[in-house]
Amino acid sequence: MSIVVLYGGSRPNGNTESLTKKVIEGLTVEEIYLNDYVIQPIVDKRHAEEGFQEIDDDYNSIIERILPHNILIFATPIYWYSMSGTMKNFIDRWSQTLKDSHYPDFKKQMSQKSAYVISVGGDEPHLKGLPMIQQFQFIFDFVGVHFAGYILGEGNKPGEIIEDKEALFAAEQLNHKLQILLSE
Amino acid sequence: MSIVVLYGGSRPNGNTESLTKKVIEGLTVEEIYLNDYVIQPIVDKRHAEEGFQEIDDDYNSIIERILPHNILIFATPIYWYSMSGTMKNFIDRWSQTLKDSHYPDFKKQMSQKSAYVISVGGDEPHLKGLPMIQQFQFIFDFVGVHFAGYILGEGNKPGEIIEDKEALFAAEQLNHKLQILLSE
Amino acid sequence: MSIVVLYGGSRPNGNTESLTKKVIEGLTVEEIYLNDYVIQPIVDKRHAEEGFQEIDDDYNSIIERILPHNILIFATPIYWYSMSGTMKNFIDRWSQTLKDSHYPDFKKQMSQKSAYVISVGGDEPHLKGLPMIQQFQFIFDFVGVHFAGYILGEGNKPGEIIEDKEALFAAEQLNHKLQILLSE
Amino acid sequence: MSIVVLYGGSRPNGNTESLTKKVIEGLTVEEIYLNDYVIQPIVDKRHAEEGFQEIDDDYNSIIERILPHNILIFATPIYWYSMSGTMKNFIDRWSQTLKDSHYPDFKKQMSQKSAYVISVGGDEPHLKGLPMIQQFQFIFDFVGVHFAGYILGEGNKPGEIIEDKEALFAAEQLNHKLQILLSE
Repeated sequence: MSIVVLYGGSRPNGNTESLTKKVIEGLTVEEIYLNDYVIQPIVDKRHAEEGFQEIDDDYNSIIERILPHNILIFATPIYWYSMSGTMKNFIDRWSQTLKDSHYPDFKKQMSQKSAYVISVGGDEPHLKGLPMIQQFQFIFDFVGVHFAGYILGEGNKPGEIIEDKEALFAAEQLNHKLQILLSE
Repeated sequence: MSIVVLYGGSRPNGNTESLTKKVIEGLTVEEIYLNDYVIQPIVDKRHAEEGFQEIDDDYNSIIERILPHNILIFATPIYWYSMSGTMKNFIDRWSQTLKDSHYPDFKKQMSQKSAYVISVGGDEPHLKGLPMIQQFQFIFDFVGVHFAGYILGEGNKPGEIIEDKEALFAAEQLNHKLQILLSE
Repeated sequence: MSIVVLYGGSRPNGNTESLTKKVIEGLTVEEIYLNDYVIQPIVDKRHAEEGFQEIDDDYNSIIERILPHNILIFATPIYWYSMSGTMKNFIDRWSQTLKDSHYPDFKKQMSQKSAYVISVGGDEPHLKGLPMIQQFQFIFDFVGVHFAGYILGEGNKPGEIIEDKEALFAAEQLNHKLQILLSE
Repeated sequence: MSIVVLYGGSRPNGNTESLTKKVIEGLTVEEIYLNDYVIQPIVDKRHAEEGFQEIDDDYNSIIERILPHNILIFATPIYWYSMSGTMKNFIDRWSQTLKDSHYPDFKKQMSQKSAYVISVGGDEPHLKGLPMIQQFQFIFDFVGVHFAGYILGEGNKPGEIIEDKEALFAAEQLNHKLQILLSE
């Protein structure tokens, strides 16, 4: 068992990152800050004769780093009621990988993974973040990833997440659970 | 009254674009293909001392082209159960404009506009596109834009949208409505 | 192929009923007005030693009338952003039927059916009716019913539905589709 | 400050009730088990000349018991991905109260209240219970009730809720919060 965390935020030490750090405290995990990489938006060539072109950016290197892991943690602040555009561009590109002969087993490999979503927002995340959770559900269903759980936290200014006791408790609980999974 | 269309897709003559062309047939509208421009992802500096930095990309020029219009049409294919990452990056940047002294009235100006969403997807859009509609509702509510309506169409391969008679009828109806609004 | 319509409303000739009549115009269908019958709320005995008790009301007779049909139409006004309490009580009782030895094949029989939802509401049904559509999706998924489509209409006072041209068009389209299905 | 709890379940000591008891532990609250009362489904007469008829059941007596309180707790098991039919029938009847000359200030009185939803379900409540939460949001918005929070728990067989540590923690947190509110 091993874990990879994908951070979608753009602010160092943001609330979502802080909450996620509680989740992975003391665990060995691979961490990827999407914001540090160049990820081009998808150009949809699913039905083009010539097919998708190879794109010269960091996307494939990230795919290669997540594929070996069993557990994916999507850690994104809520920007405008969904994941950040950076994380969305990363996921949009899966359409290309699904057709990419270098990754013939992408869907099968994904379908053996579990995923968690950790997300902090400032505008009623427990109500207005729900469409994002439903969207992740459809995304995970499409590639067969098991949606193992999510934590929604509330916070706006840096550091505010520490006042959300329920989110912190949920992070602690998930930390215990992941510890057990990793030791199996 | 005047209309601006924001296209979020990446495929020329895609299904969403075709459906939108029915909506605006015979009307004078400004059309913006987001994919033709460079739009950097937001770097969240809302709470940073130094504030947001000026970004050297095409984002502001697009904002300037949409502000004069009363009616916004967001035309995005459904990519992974929501708007394209390109359109999401565009909207994420509104957080910067809301703090930008060059646009002190951004929210007020937006709040005087109406918006439509036109979106075609291949995987049960009438069910799995609903979180995206709810997300747009929250986005529009935040800046005070009136959510005047949406059309969800079904299609996957290029051209398939012409088989979705209900979407085409809805496009025709909206076309009539916009004709009347423009002539007022 | 045969069709049964379940009406959940409480108002004769209400907007939802009118819209549904357009859908079934010229077709032979069985119509059940739930409001004409006594349907007790469920008493949850799924885990009780003694199991469910036989309830002396009209519920089972309605189940027997719907089981022979292939296509179910759930026609309910939107009351408080979901189906009427009357229709909800009817569906809640499925939990009993799923355990009822008189209907050992209930789930299997349901899983061979398709369902449509037709629903008119007065308060932004295309936005605020979406959670109801998602609820129906989960309901149908649970018993394996295929969710073949829905029509949301807007109307409040009696008769207002005739002004919702898109809903009427969708009703007409569905009428054609059902005609073809019935003749197969 | 005072609290009223509305129970929508049909099973004594069910999981939702148990979780709610944790929330109100040590507090003086009024408790109403809807299942103990006769609540007729609404007959929609909003637009009928004669208006609504007085209904001879327990509905009004329940309204009179909830109106004096500031905080409403809706405690319903998830039945078929929403509140129980019993609770839905209760809420449907608000349409009558909104027109009832005996309660001329119903909406105004409701708009001064806050509400919590506590709900346990057996089938992925954190995903499949979300439309119910959105539905409650629209319900509360309509009458101006402040939606102060919700707890979703997971459990099926009686007693299972005690294994949902996050729900129990959230119940404890809410208990503290309500203690403080009641002492103000």
